[in-house]
Amino acid sequence: MSTTTRETTITADPAAPTVRIAREFDAPVANVFRAHVDPDLVKRWLGPRNLTMEIHRFDAETGGAYRYTHRDDDGEYVFYGSFHEVRPTERIVQTFSYEGFPDSVTLETMTFTDLGDGRTRIEGLSLFESIEARDAMVASGMEVGVREGYEQLDELLAE
Amino acid sequence: MSTTTRETTITADPAAPTVRIAREFDAPVANVFRAHVDPDLVKRWLGPRNLTMEIHRFDAETGGAYRYTHRDDDGEYVFYGSFHEVRPTERIVQTFSYEGFPDSVTLETMTFTDLGDGRTRIEGLSLFESIEARDAMVASGMEVGVREGYEQLDELLAE
Repeated sequence: MSTTTRETTITADPAAPTVRIAREFDAPVANVFRAHVDPDLVKRWLGPRNLTMEIHRFDAETGGAYRYTHRDDDGEYVFYGSFHEVRPTERIVQTFSYEGFPDSVTLETMTFTDLGDGRTRIEGLSLFESIEARDAMVASGMEVGVREGYEQLDELLAE
Repeated sequence: MSTTTRETTITADPAAPTVRIAREFDAPVANVFRAHVDPDLVKRWLGPRNLTMEIHRFDAETGGAYRYTHRDDDGEYVFYGSFHEVRPTERIVQTFSYEGFPDSVTLETMTFTDLGDGRTRIEGLSLFESIEARDAMVASGMEVGVREGYEQLDELLAE
């Protein structure tokens, strides 16, 4: 019998401008997926613990878009993008950029896999315009935000 | 005095999953840009000459989306995507996929440069998930569609 690995793996491919993220959750795929598309749930877990999130738009459907502000003691940061495809319980493809650097855009694909026994694995692929842009994002501390966000998602899914 | 180069250059980077396209037009940047965002104009030039285009949705604005059908004697082909950003007369960032292969998504950035004297240069960057996906798209004959489409755009801009 397997045990869920709650470790978040974050991998930067040395030969391609990508970041791959993998994480497992002790919750059914429908719940994990819903936590990614329902803005009232998204705002409770996305990003590092020290930030609060205000959502301005979050139409998580094929052809939809989103825009939100993250705030901490130092200031506020607006992020936005569009949803290329939202395939319920299976896949979300979206763009992403920080308003402060609007010319740096990533394409993000998240796939959801039902592991059985009420467990779910998600795998994310972020595609950058260049290896330099990818390395800058990794160096900016994205890893902390991803890990802490998924810890908050664990807590939300356990409610 | 420089002359507009109407040759379309299409470059596949050997080390990155990208295709770069460059083309100049004998028309002001406002007109070239408008031909990319007004669906009544887009349907007159986008794609190879032997296809007709039916547009189902074309909201060329930040957070908008599009969907259209290309038809020829052999069948019909649906394409769709979302607009990450539309920055008037400067830049369009959008996703793109063919409904027949929905898991293969590209991120496309088009920049518009005013060359003066009523001339415009456009540069496109298409970002693929892998070099293999990029090579498959190039091998599928995208080059013919791009070149013929821009010839049709020349004709439209000369009206």
